[in-house]
Amino acid sequence: MASFLITGASRGFGLALVKELASLPPSKVSNIIAASRSQSTALDELIKSDTTNRIEQVRLDVTNRDSIATAAAEVEAKLGDKGLDVLINNAGVLEYSFGGTSSMENLESSFAVNVLGVHHVTQSFFPLLIKGNLKKVANISTTLGSIAVAPSFAAMPAPAYKIIKAAMNALTVQWALDHEKDGFTFVALCPGWMKTELGGGDMADLTPEQGAKASLDIIFNKSQAEVNGKMAKVFVEGLDKPAEGRLNVYDGSDAPW
Amino acid sequence: MASFLITGASRGFGLALVKELASLPPSKVSNIIAASRSQSTALDELIKSDTTNRIEQVRLDVTNRDSIATAAAEVEAKLGDKGLDVLINNAGVLEYSFGGTSSMENLESSFAVNVLGVHHVTQSFFPLLIKGNLKKVANISTTLGSIAVAPSFAAMPAPAYKIIKAAMNALTVQWALDHEKDGFTFVALCPGWMKTELGGGDMADLTPEQGAKASLDIIFNKSQAEVNGKMAKVFVEGLDKPAEGRLNVYDGSDAPW
Repeated sequence: MASFLITGASRGFGLALVKELASLPPSKVSNIIAASRSQSTALDELIKSDTTNRIEQVRLDVTNRDSIATAAAEVEAKLGDKGLDVLINNAGVLEYSFGGTSSMENLESSFAVNVLGVHHVTQSFFPLLIKGNLKKVANISTTLGSIAVAPSFAAMPAPAYKIIKAAMNALTVQWALDHEKDGFTFVALCPGWMKTELGGGDMADLTPEQGAKASLDIIFNKSQAEVNGKMAKVFVEGLDKPAEGRLNVYDGSDAPW
Repeated sequence: MASFLITGASRGFGLALVKELASLPPSKVSNIIAASRSQSTALDELIKSDTTNRIEQVRLDVTNRDSIATAAAEVEAKLGDKGLDVLINNAGVLEYSFGGTSSMENLESSFAVNVLGVHHVTQSFFPLLIKGNLKKVANISTTLGSIAVAPSFAAMPAPAYKIIKAAMNALTVQWALDHEKDGFTFVALCPGWMKTELGGGDMADLTPEQGAKASLDIIFNKSQAEVNGKMAKVFVEGLDKPAEGRLNVYDGSDAPW
């Protein structure tokens, strides 16, 4: 009986997480709070079709601290003393710089959403997470944020995204080290390259559903000792071995920093 | 006959770099441009005592793009068509968060100086670096910015500094990958723990002079193949083996990301 909050839940991977959670029995998932900056027909329809009434929507702009505070108060009113079990910081932006680093002008905007946004949301929901039983925070990451493997991804013209996801990974590790003793698990979770608007459509390796299922597998089944302060990659059956023409291996291992 | 520009040159490690460069023969070092946000008596005195007149001062606030543009125009007027050989992005801030990550409020200010500042300075001086012969950029880093060794430094209450230096490392690698083909070397250079105001006084391992000598050794003697896109640690004779009570090993190896 765990409660979840997912940011960036209006579309893509966030929406797929909400859908996947709603397909699990109420004995496993009690509350699904779908936080998003904007209205979404797809999310509205998902809420309508959920006969167990576990999905609730909250308006949240991760770049606005007032919006975060309002959302946290709203969620506290909903969940009360049982608190929040799992926070999934999924809201993010991928911006391109086709001229390369020398003309890159989107570091600051990318930082505002992907790092400051994650940090401020975590800060504001932290009191509720302390009250929760599971005490898990998954910050949605990517191997593009791995500095060690950066040469492999040199051809992808999104330097700001790579730099800022490395910063988000470092942020995750600082939270992980600080709160391990309090029973928390902070993981930089790589759901894989998915067929979403952010991910890049049909060329990608996974459907959002595959990414969501495999990510929840980590959240539900991996222990603090296994993933706290790590960059955890998902395991996907059939894609867990290297293959010609596919850069990513979904073997459930940790990615190097 | 190389020209150098050092940011944050008014004190500490930046000042030590200027001093060390001024001690080298004019056949090796032609111009030393000491950039700093504020006036510094120590720098003024160093300039007065330099009988070869190679040190020139430039006013530069790395958080202000107008200030950076003005400084770049000024330096271009000084160096003309021979361009700039080496840029050392040394200006930085170390801010503490004694309450840990949950009360950390200095991520944004730390990012402005240590990441955006480095990026914008590099962008504005890039045309001059293209004209230069050596095409070297050293971004001053620290093993505190290594995510892989973060657990070793957990006791140091400066999470924002660690996170933001990881981002600066990632920034360095993106520039390195983009401009390797143009003959550039971008290195995240770790001068070591020094007895400076930022470094933490007398407890530190190295004098600023030791750090500066060892850093220039990397800048002058390491090839593109050896350090481009790497986090390079300095080599210091006598401190190049692990020792009880000293966390850092100055063996000239690369630090893991």
